[in-house]
Amino acid sequence: MIKITFPDNSVREYEEGITGLQIAESISSRLAQEVLAASVNGETWDLTRPISEDAAIQLLKWEDTEGKHAYWHSSAHLMAEALQALYPGIKFGIGPAIENGFYYDVDPGEGVSIKESDFPAIEKKMMELIAAKEEIRRKNISKADAIKMFSDRNENYKVELISELEDGTITTYTQGDFTDLCRGPHLPNTSYIKSVKVLSVAGAYWRGDEKRPQLTRLYGITFPKKKMLDEYLEMIEEAKKRDHRKIGKELELFTFSQVVGAGLPLWLPKGTQLRLKLEEFLKKIQQQFEYEQVITPHIGGKQLYVTSGHYAKYGKDSFQPIRTPEEDEEFLLKPMNCPHHCEIYKAFPRSYKDLPLRLAEFGTVYRYEQSGELHGLTRVRGFTQDDAHIFCMPEQVKDEFLKVMDIIFIIFKALDFKDFEAQISLRDPENKEKYIGTDENWDKAERAILEACEEKGMKARVELGEAAFYGPKLDFMVKDALGRRWQLGTIQVDYNLPDRFELEYTGADNQKHRPVMIHRAPFGSMERFVAVLIEHTAGKFPLWLTPTQVVILPVSEKFNDYAYSVARTLKMQDIRAEVDDRNEKVGRKIRDNELRRTPYLLIVGEKEAENEEVSVRKQGGIDQGSEKLTTFAHRIKQEVDEMMNPQVNI
Amino acid sequence: MIKITFPDNSVREYEEGITGLQIAESISSRLAQEVLAASVNGETWDLTRPISEDAAIQLLKWEDTEGKHAYWHSSAHLMAEALQALYPGIKFGIGPAIENGFYYDVDPGEGVSIKESDFPAIEKKMMELIAAKEEIRRKNISKADAIKMFSDRNENYKVELISELEDGTITTYTQGDFTDLCRGPHLPNTSYIKSVKVLSVAGAYWRGDEKRPQLTRLYGITFPKKKMLDEYLEMIEEAKKRDHRKIGKELELFTFSQVVGAGLPLWLPKGTQLRLKLEEFLKKIQQQFEYEQVITPHIGGKQLYVTSGHYAKYGKDSFQPIRTPEEDEEFLLKPMNCPHHCEIYKAFPRSYKDLPLRLAEFGTVYRYEQSGELHGLTRVRGFTQDDAHIFCMPEQVKDEFLKVMDIIFIIFKALDFKDFEAQISLRDPENKEKYIGTDENWDKAERAILEACEEKGMKARVELGEAAFYGPKLDFMVKDALGRRWQLGTIQVDYNLPDRFELEYTGADNQKHRPVMIHRAPFGSMERFVAVLIEHTAGKFPLWLTPTQVVILPVSEKFNDYAYSVARTLKMQDIRAEVDDRNEKVGRKIRDNELRRTPYLLIVGEKEAENEEVSVRKQGGIDQGSEKLTTFAHRIKQEVDEMMNPQVNI
Repeated sequence: MIKITFPDNSVREYEEGITGLQIAESISSRLAQEVLAASVNGETWDLTRPISEDAAIQLLKWEDTEGKHAYWHSSAHLMAEALQALYPGIKFGIGPAIENGFYYDVDPGEGVSIKESDFPAIEKKMMELIAAKEEIRRKNISKADAIKMFSDRNENYKVELISELEDGTITTYTQGDFTDLCRGPHLPNTSYIKSVKVLSVAGAYWRGDEKRPQLTRLYGITFPKKKMLDEYLEMIEEAKKRDHRKIGKELELFTFSQVVGAGLPLWLPKGTQLRLKLEEFLKKIQQQFEYEQVITPHIGGKQLYVTSGHYAKYGKDSFQPIRTPEEDEEFLLKPMNCPHHCEIYKAFPRSYKDLPLRLAEFGTVYRYEQSGELHGLTRVRGFTQDDAHIFCMPEQVKDEFLKVMDIIFIIFKALDFKDFEAQISLRDPENKEKYIGTDENWDKAERAILEACEEKGMKARVELGEAAFYGPKLDFMVKDALGRRWQLGTIQVDYNLPDRFELEYTGADNQKHRPVMIHRAPFGSMERFVAVLIEHTAGKFPLWLTPTQVVILPVSEKFNDYAYSVARTLKMQDIRAEVDDRNEKVGRKIRDNELRRTPYLLIVGEKEAENEEVSVRKQGGIDQGSEKLTTFAHRIKQEVDEMMNPQVNI
Repeated sequence: MIKITFPDNSVREYEEGITGLQIAESISSRLAQEVLAASVNGETWDLTRPISEDAAIQLLKWEDTEGKHAYWHSSAHLMAEALQALYPGIKFGIGPAIENGFYYDVDPGEGVSIKESDFPAIEKKMMELIAAKEEIRRKNISKADAIKMFSDRNENYKVELISELEDGTITTYTQGDFTDLCRGPHLPNTSYIKSVKVLSVAGAYWRGDEKRPQLTRLYGITFPKKKMLDEYLEMIEEAKKRDHRKIGKELELFTFSQVVGAGLPLWLPKGTQLRLKLEEFLKKIQQQFEYEQVITPHIGGKQLYVTSGHYAKYGKDSFQPIRTPEEDEEFLLKPMNCPHHCEIYKAFPRSYKDLPLRLAEFGTVYRYEQSGELHGLTRVRGFTQDDAHIFCMPEQVKDEFLKVMDIIFIIFKALDFKDFEAQISLRDPENKEKYIGTDENWDKAERAILEACEEKGMKARVELGEAAFYGPKLDFMVKDALGRRWQLGTIQVDYNLPDRFELEYTGADNQKHRPVMIHRAPFGSMERFVAVLIEHTAGKFPLWLTPTQVVILPVSEKFNDYAYSVARTLKMQDIRAEVDDRNEKVGRKIRDNELRRTPYLLIVGEKEAENEEVSVRKQGGIDQGSEKLTTFAHRIKQEVDEMMNPQVNI
């Protein structure tokens, strides 16, 4: 008999050789149906693999990342098995599970190509293999045998992979006629998979090397329920519609120019309006929290980054130094604002009475990315951080965390991110020597973060060993309207830069001390945040933020004058109004301006002009009837002002 | 007899050989006393030089730049004559008149140095030579004779200069024992000079070349009245006190870091506050004039500047290209925003209905300057232009000039620049081939500028041939509180960039046309403008602009709480208030905060706390008595709001 310990620390005895699946069955048949893999002493195992000694076990289901991972990994094998049946002579590269589904890189052979029109046949074959309920079997094999087996089948990609493995650790998985080199773990059989979809096809160089052959990468996804697949496909469709690159173009928010350079966004008037409104909003909040705005140049002497350590670490992979024509000087485009802010800190002798000093800057930074890695506003080469650095005493860290959390929560609320999680990244307590800063300060800061979360009632996942070498941090992950997770709002303690820049303050004891530095950026970058906001709202921004708040639609040219006088009245109240005076039918005007996501359309004709009224049509086609212009203006202005001036309790 | 034509086109006859001075005497003895030189057929002549044929003449006085120039040029010779008497063997370089006074570069000989303590002796000797009323005589001389004369005196610097001259054009001027190689013109004799001052001494390389010997440069100034010298010296003293570098430090507005780099300002919190307020002010005005804000990156692909022509013209003398680590790409720090804005123009097909399109950006640009040329915020390597580019049809140029002039006048008024002049720079009508753009468009634009100035009642000096090759322009020169002139607010027409970037719009005729581009920046750059503003106001910024508007001074610690509640009340009204809670006597606090140029000091003690009042002390030590806090807050807020929201008639 062996002892099996469960996550709740309860222990049960089982016969030696028991499997994860049998353990699940011993608990409940429902659990046995839901379980996909087992974590055995921290390693993920097949459900059918016998356990031969005492072990800590956790049964993994769809909700567990590792459970889902096994599911999609087996699905990759299933797709490969189907391809093998459909494309004789096909050769296989690698086929991993990914964040959403899986892919397999294959070489279908000279002159054979797999196209989107072939997907239904592949899916059909996969469903047949599922119906056959094929058992998935794990087998240990020697390196020599493995090489022989895959050589016999002309699987040269696999042979290359095997020849790089150490001997003694090689396993294969087999289902039906298909055998793959694989570490696992896998599902017990193919019938676990219920619903399949081949998603897309793309080219991919073998091992990511453009000098090696180009393989065909097939992406797929599977689910234990048909309904889940349908929802997923719907979400993908919706995500395509919400793609910030598409909406950014439609709403004329930003553009790129190949002459200016890839990854260097040009903010168009409406995008600039939106971005500046966001900046203004944050500035107002930060002012209440006693941040001080600064402005620093976009370049800095190379020595600045030698001191900070960035040059040694990233110099080679960054934009290269800028030289001057006559003098022996070198500058770098700034990749972050912290060194400049350290120099501002050093511009004066500082005393404990000056702390916390909170220096904020909407600082544009430049970081080199390969052009192939660039993506809309989410992966760019130049972006503006809503950056701030808080210089404080170690005992002030908790208070500062509480205040930054307040700011982040105000933002999440104002922008309707209702669903978010926190993660606290602490030191690895087993490897304290890896970290810079004293034990005492680390303990103080880690405790401060934990307590701050507790005081805010913010449930946070604690990850040991995930802290940066220079300090612990707190991250927020928000879920957008499509359920996708985005990391926003990191708060990072830093003991390193104050050391490297030799920052000091005079304490109440009249001695010199080193301040702690906290980095924080609630939006992260204006570019990425606007991208997230576009996709979260599908371009229907909140009224206070949207570039055009009101469009006035005269029912005919006769009422253009009144329409413009309405616009003027609204603009006097700082309401962003436009007139659509095109010579079009009003129905067409309504349709066009709804496509532009305008919050309010005001239709004006004879009755309205006579009575100084407007007919209000709210976003979503809601007819709000006629209203006095002054009442409407007052109402809208009030709504906007309330949002732009959030009540802050400090 | 010869005919002399005067500026009012009247003509008088004089005997051949008449001099300017004699002509002046023939008109009035007062004029003869005031005249310093004569413009003869557009060339400035000595007053004593005989005129031998018909000529157009203008008698030049102190008020005329050329008159003052002759006065200071003769003063340089006077100083040189004094130095020759005091320092035997001294050798002379060049000694020109400059904007304020003159200098002479001299080589006093091995081991001899001229120090500030020697200035009184030099001035005394100059006054002696003035009292001697030495005649200043012009003489034509051959090149060979000139070389021999100066060689005999070991004047090697002069010999070098002469040997580079063409023969036949060489003149010397002599007074007493001193003879100088000189084109003139000069005063009739030394007694015209009444009041002298040697101002300073500095090193200067011969011909500006650091490989040549270093000479001693002596600066001086002279005036026809003692009172004028006193006023000038007082102005210099005041200018030193107002030096923006000094006040910028005192008021903690900006700083520099040698690690970040010379000429790259770091804007401190209070300076940032001030600058952002100015930007906000201009943004509000521009919004009313229907400008659209954009944001573009601080770098651009090299091709952008090859297209614009900047790379060919300035590339070698600029910050050098930024290379990427892996790819063959080159970027430049942007030296101006126009090419980026052209790319935004090109992002969409444009129609005549879209014009004028006014793209505005507070765009930070970087231009290389030698480190020795850098000076505070007025000469920097990175600065932010309050830039805008107006893309319009040729027939819209006048209207756009009128509107930009409106903006500039609003700014001048808000910032109390009461005294300003305009200059219109047009084509040289004799050399039309030097300019890009059609004759028709130039005529249209030049007429537009002239008419715009006329409509505004703005008297402007017209300078032919001063236009850039790509278009005519209008410049404004403001006089600051010390009477110094600063160029602010250029409006420049540009036919070149629209051509180079192949910008187009579809006209009402459905044909493609090229738009005109207008560059304009009312402030010029935020850096330079803030420097001018500091020196103009001596750091006493207008209430709406100043970083700290109100400081509250509790008379003792007992009233700190009330002081902070006053500050909170004011902050709720967006009034920038601070508390001086130092444990100091209130007299000391008043003194310190007056030095910080705080517009309002509120003194609070028992009476004030009881009655919710404040004792108001306005800048300049004006005691305004007690006032209800709410009344004070309301009054200040109203004053600020009115300034921040200027009435614009469009």
